[in-house]
Amino acid sequence: MCSVISGLRPAQRALAATLRIRTITEGSRYAAAESRRFCPGGSLGTDPLRATSRSYCTSMAGLLFRQLFESESSTYTYLLADTETRDAILIDPVLETIDRDLKLIRELELNLKVAVNTHCHADHITSTGLMKKRSVGLKSAISKFSGASADIFLSEGDKITFGKHYLTVRETPGHTDGCVSLVSGDQRMVFTGDALLIRGCGRTDFQQGCAKKLYESVHQKIFTLPDHCLIYPAHDYLGQTVSTVGEERKFNPRLTKNLEEFVNIMNNLNLPKPKKIDISVPANLVCGVHQV
Amino acid sequence: MCSVISGLRPAQRALAATLRIRTITEGSRYAAAESRRFCPGGSLGTDPLRATSRSYCTSMAGLLFRQLFESESSTYTYLLADTETRDAILIDPVLETIDRDLKLIRELELNLKVAVNTHCHADHITSTGLMKKRSVGLKSAISKFSGASADIFLSEGDKITFGKHYLTVRETPGHTDGCVSLVSGDQRMVFTGDALLIRGCGRTDFQQGCAKKLYESVHQKIFTLPDHCLIYPAHDYLGQTVSTVGEERKFNPRLTKNLEEFVNIMNNLNLPKPKKIDISVPANLVCGVHQV
Repeated sequence: MCSVISGLRPAQRALAATLRIRTITEGSRYAAAESRRFCPGGSLGTDPLRATSRSYCTSMAGLLFRQLFESESSTYTYLLADTETRDAILIDPVLETIDRDLKLIRELELNLKVAVNTHCHADHITSTGLMKKRSVGLKSAISKFSGASADIFLSEGDKITFGKHYLTVRETPGHTDGCVSLVSGDQRMVFTGDALLIRGCGRTDFQQGCAKKLYESVHQKIFTLPDHCLIYPAHDYLGQTVSTVGEERKFNPRLTKNLEEFVNIMNNLNLPKPKKIDISVPANLVCGVHQV
Repeated sequence: MCSVISGLRPAQRALAATLRIRTITEGSRYAAAESRRFCPGGSLGTDPLRATSRSYCTSMAGLLFRQLFESESSTYTYLLADTETRDAILIDPVLETIDRDLKLIRELELNLKVAVNTHCHADHITSTGLMKKRSVGLKSAISKFSGASADIFLSEGDKITFGKHYLTVRETPGHTDGCVSLVSGDQRMVFTGDALLIRGCGRTDFQQGCAKKLYESVHQKIFTLPDHCLIYPAHDYLGQTVSTVGEERKFNPRLTKNLEEFVNIMNNLNLPKPKKIDISVPANLVCGVHQV
């Protein structure tokens, strides 16, 4: 049963089929990783450096990958494309950088198929809505649990396909109910949104935030990926661009704690309210400043 | 004749030998690329996208690579290491981010051997001098034409080796007399400093700036690299992290012009004086805020 396609109107269903968004069963992967669940800390014996090295000889030939940064909200946008078919997807595009992103896509002669938001952001407005008006055929995608409008609603195990490549959806709620992480087909890259940041994680004190849920998401859905899997977050505030599962399992100052300690940390961050939350969330619920 | 080693005092010579900094003759590569010299513009017939794809299946297994950003001066620092020997080098480290960089190096259990500056920076102070005090055995390196102090003075064709990997020095003056670009052994990555930026280039109106010299450097030393070669610059001000030789040869708005047009553009930028130049350049001439 394909939850994405079944949840769509007929026209959307045809579109989703065209985009080859498929559901896969990941149960076996999770089962195999069960022994690693809830075993945070430094006792893993992992060498994150050796793990990291594997990522630089990837089997994903024909993949174009660009990491782009928006400095006001410290947001990373990711462009991925199949260099043969030129089909492309964007992850977490930001309104302020829409011209830069569209210029690059135009220069590289890409066919932008899907703009995915990892969740309904509170700190910036997505460019998805405006981009749809400026990029013929572009469809928006977001978790079905986000509460936001979109052309495509994502569920656990769905695949977002571009050419011969795809990303698999893993639901990672906790920062919000509708947070997803996106894993490359060869499990060498994961786009973690705000669920897991480099040596940090998203806050859990607004929207549907829940520290316990976030802890379980990271340990069950991200830390079960291979140690060499590169982590590309939605934000970084210290100029870091990438980490690995092995590194975060060993060095993340929050997620290496046990559940009780983690919840205590998250409940006592005392962070200020995001400056743009009152305009960002309502806008992002309708795909940015424009309708779906 | 190894110009680096021959230009050093005996102790430095031994050090350089230890680090296996070697001179190679690149004449044949340049000769082979002669036909592409001074042929800028869009008539190349290159598909930068297909060129880009090749870079994602590199033969450089066992290479750790991290791109790091310093937001005040918009400077990129690069960490490269051999995952077997754990020998590492840093390119263009910045004073403000020294703690972040040393923490990462410590976590990854790397042996930091050389901190290289691509040139004597005017917009920020290098952390090399302070890092030498905090990292036993670390040596500084910079072009012999920079006018700056360092443990190792670099010349055309020198190799900076870390484990089984190395970067080859290409002199690319024009922004300053002592600008170098550093090319990975497999020519899949080039660190261009301020010589070539993404869709831009370094200014040529202070220090020993010379637009004609910069134009020739980029066309002779960078645009002669393979189209798929990834360009990692010292700065970006628009959130871009990487480009390719193929892309810049096709889309760089300045370097695709002819020499006369380029010189005219560069001589009429009317940029403000860099805020920190009066403290950065004197400091960087002595390896940052501290002596060599």
